[in-house]
Amino acid sequence: MSTISAQHPYQQDQSSPAHSPAKGRGLIRNILNTLSLSAIIGLLPVTAEAAESGNTLSDVSPALAQADQTLVGKELWQRAGLSARDRSLVTVAALVARNQSYLLPRELERALENGVKPAELSELINHLAYYAGWDNALNAANICHVIFADHKIPSEQLPAVDPELLSFDKEAEDQRQSFVSSTYGEVSQGVVDYTQTQLFLDLWRRPDLAPRDRSLITVSALVASGQPEQIGFHLNKAMDNGLKQKEAGEALTQLAFYAGWPKVFSALPVVKDVLNKRQK
Amino acid sequence: MSTISAQHPYQQDQSSPAHSPAKGRGLIRNILNTLSLSAIIGLLPVTAEAAESGNTLSDVSPALAQADQTLVGKELWQRAGLSARDRSLVTVAALVARNQSYLLPRELERALENGVKPAELSELINHLAYYAGWDNALNAANICHVIFADHKIPSEQLPAVDPELLSFDKEAEDQRQSFVSSTYGEVSQGVVDYTQTQLFLDLWRRPDLAPRDRSLITVSALVASGQPEQIGFHLNKAMDNGLKQKEAGEALTQLAFYAGWPKVFSALPVVKDVLNKRQK
Amino acid sequence: MSTISAQHPYQQDQSSPAHSPAKGRGLIRNILNTLSLSAIIGLLPVTAEAAESGNTLSDVSPALAQADQTLVGKELWQRAGLSARDRSLVTVAALVARNQSYLLPRELERALENGVKPAELSELINHLAYYAGWDNALNAANICHVIFADHKIPSEQLPAVDPELLSFDKEAEDQRQSFVSSTYGEVSQGVVDYTQTQLFLDLWRRPDLAPRDRSLITVSALVASGQPEQIGFHLNKAMDNGLKQKEAGEALTQLAFYAGWPKVFSALPVVKDVLNKRQK
Repeated sequence: MSTISAQHPYQQDQSSPAHSPAKGRGLIRNILNTLSLSAIIGLLPVTAEAAESGNTLSDVSPALAQADQTLVGKELWQRAGLSARDRSLVTVAALVARNQSYLLPRELERALENGVKPAELSELINHLAYYAGWDNALNAANICHVIFADHKIPSEQLPAVDPELLSFDKEAEDQRQSFVSSTYGEVSQGVVDYTQTQLFLDLWRRPDLAPRDRSLITVSALVASGQPEQIGFHLNKAMDNGLKQKEAGEALTQLAFYAGWPKVFSALPVVKDVLNKRQK
Repeated sequence: MSTISAQHPYQQDQSSPAHSPAKGRGLIRNILNTLSLSAIIGLLPVTAEAAESGNTLSDVSPALAQADQTLVGKELWQRAGLSARDRSLVTVAALVARNQSYLLPRELERALENGVKPAELSELINHLAYYAGWDNALNAANICHVIFADHKIPSEQLPAVDPELLSFDKEAEDQRQSFVSSTYGEVSQGVVDYTQTQLFLDLWRRPDLAPRDRSLITVSALVASGQPEQIGFHLNKAMDNGLKQKEAGEALTQLAFYAGWPKVFSALPVVKDVLNKRQK
Repeated sequence: MSTISAQHPYQQDQSSPAHSPAKGRGLIRNILNTLSLSAIIGLLPVTAEAAESGNTLSDVSPALAQADQTLVGKELWQRAGLSARDRSLVTVAALVARNQSYLLPRELERALENGVKPAELSELINHLAYYAGWDNALNAANICHVIFADHKIPSEQLPAVDPELLSFDKEAEDQRQSFVSSTYGEVSQGVVDYTQTQLFLDLWRRPDLAPRDRSLITVSALVASGQPEQIGFHLNKAMDNGLKQKEAGEALTQLAFYAGWPKVFSALPVVKDVLNKRQK
C-alpha cells in the first residue's frame, strides 16, 4: 500500500503540510485498521465461485437473477425501435443521473461493446455534470477512468478541452435566452448567465456527442431523476434534433427497468402531451 | 487476495479473454495500489473502540447519536399502530428505494429480528427492482447476500423462480390494462406490455410476499423517492389489500425519520385525499 | 487487520454471541477474500501520480477537469453576493441531501477552510438527519468523523446534546402547529407530534447553527433533492431569518453546478413567486 495517494480531488492543487501525502498515508493506515462490517459489506462482495457460477444474485433472489440474465440482460437490448447503442446511452445516463455506481462498470463495458465511442462516453459524463450534478459526473468519471485504462484508450481519443464548436441557430438561442433572462434574471442572474455561456453556447455545441445524443441522455436523465416538469422542453429539443417518436417510447421501456416503473409513469403524461402537440 | 474475483455481474456469463479472472486480478492489484483518501474514508470507518463505546457518531454529533440510540433506535419502533415487523418493511423499502447502503446492513439485520422472513426480504428486493430500479435492487441484493450468508439461510427458503402464482381479479386487471393501453399505448407499447406481463400478471401474484406487504413497500418506496404523484393509485391498492388507515399514518411517521420530513410532507396531501375519498 | 471491528451501528448496543467481534472478524475475512472488480472500482481509485499531476479526471474528460479546477474550483466560489462560507454551507447541504459521498471529503475540508465551524458542520448534519433522512446524516457523519479526527477537533467544540435553546416566537409556532395539526392530525398524528417536539421546539432552536443558516441549508437541501413544492415555506422562513434576495439567487447559482441545472430550473418559479409576494 506504499503508493496509496493521500490526496483527494480538492487537495490536488495544494501543497500545504496539512495535506501532505505522508500525513495522509498515516491517516489511511489508521482508517484501514478500523473498517467496520458495514463498511466491508458495502464493497459489493462477490465470491470467485459465485461469480463463476453466476449465482450471487440468485443467493438472494433466483427470480431476479433470471430476469437480470434473460429479460433485462438480453431481451430488452434486442427490442426493435431503439438500437443497442442508443439503449446504452439511455442506461448509462440513467445510472449517472441517479449516482448509481453498482451497475455502472458493467454498463460502461456494455456501452463500449455496443459501439458507443470512448469520446462519446467522455462527453456524456461532461454533459451530465451540468444536467445531473458535479458529484454525479466526477464519481462516474472516476469509475470510467478504470474502464478506459483497462481498454487502453489513448488520450488522443478524448474530446479536446476547446474543440471547434458546432454551429447553432443564433435566433433561436437569442429567443431562449431572452425569455429566461426576462423571466428569471431578477431571481438569479448567475444562473441565467451560466445557462447561456456554459450550456447553450458551449456544452451543447461540443462536437464529440451529437446534439440528438445529448438530447437523448438529457431526457433520460430527467426521467430517471423524477423531474417530469423539465421533460417537455428537452423532449421537444430531442425531436427537433432527430429523435424519433418510436425511439422515445423505447427509451421509456429501457428506463422502466433501469430507473423503475414509477419514474416512467410520471413521465408518460408529459411525453404524450409533447407528442400530441407536435402532431398538430 | 488470491481468490479475489475479477468478474463483475455483466462479466459473469462471459468467457472472453478480455474478461478473464487472471486479467482482472492484475487490474485489481493496480487499483488497490492506488486507493485515494477519499476512497478510503468512503469505507465507513468505525474503530473497534468506537463501536464498542458507540461513540463514532457522537464524535461528530452527540445529539444525533443520542437520537439514533433512543428516539429512532427504540421509541419509534415501539409505537402503536404499526408492528415492528411492518416498520422494518417500510424502512428497508425506503433504503432500497433511495439506494442507501449505509444503514441497509443494520436494517436488514433488524428486519430478520423483527420477524420478516428471508423469503420476504428476497421478494422485497425483487419487487423494488421494478418499482425503484435495477441498480437499487442488485446493489441491495449484494448486501443482503452477506447477511443471508451470515445467518446461513438455506437456498430452499428462497422464493422459487416460477412459483404457483396467487389468483387475481381478472376483471379489475383487464380494466387497468385497458385504461393504460388506451392512454399510453401509442406513447410506449413496451412499457404498457411489460406493465401487464411482468408486474400485474406476475410480480404482484408471487406468493412469498403478501399483496398487502407488496403494497406497503411500494407506497413506502414512492414516499421515500419523492413521487407523491404516484401514491394515490398504490395507497388505494394498499388499503384494498388490507392496509389500515392507522398503519398508513404510522408508516409516514417511520418515513419521516428514514426518508426525511420533506418527503413525508409532500406525501401528506395525497394520503389525506385518498383517505377522504375512501370514507365517502 | 486484527483490530477491525465486526460491529456495525445497529450492533453497537448488543452483546449477543451472534454479533460478537470474533464472529464478525471471520465474516470480514471471508468477504475480503471475495471482493469483486466492480467493488474495487467503486473505491474511487486515484493513482498517486494522477493525484499529483491532477490528471485523473482529465483521463476521462479534460474539459470537465478544467472546469472543475477553474470555473467550479475557483470562479464560482469568489462570486459576489454570497460568501465563500455560505457557499460551503449550500454545497455540503446539497451533497448530504443527495447522499453523495464522492465530493463530500473535499467539500468538508473546504468548508473548514472557508470558516464554517466544526460545531456548525455538526449541526448541519444533525439538521439534515431530519430534513434529508437518517441514512444521509449517518453516512455523512461517518465521513465527517475522519475529517474531524484529521483536524484534531476536540470534543468540547461539538454542540452539547441538550444545550440551552434559543428563544422562539411562541405565537407563530402555535399557529403553525395548529394549522398542521388540524390539516394532517387525522392522517398521521405521529408526524404532527414529532414535527413540533423534535423540529420546531428543539432542532430549530439549537444554538450552534444560526436560524438563518439552518434555513439556508434547508432550502439548499430542498432544491438539491428536487422538492420545489416544499421550498415556499422554507424560503420565506429563510428570508424572515435574514437571508437576502441576492444571497438566495447566488445559492441557486452554486446549486446549478452541485445539484445540476434541472433542479435549479424546477426551483426558479417557486423562488420567483416567493420574492414577488414578499415585495408587495
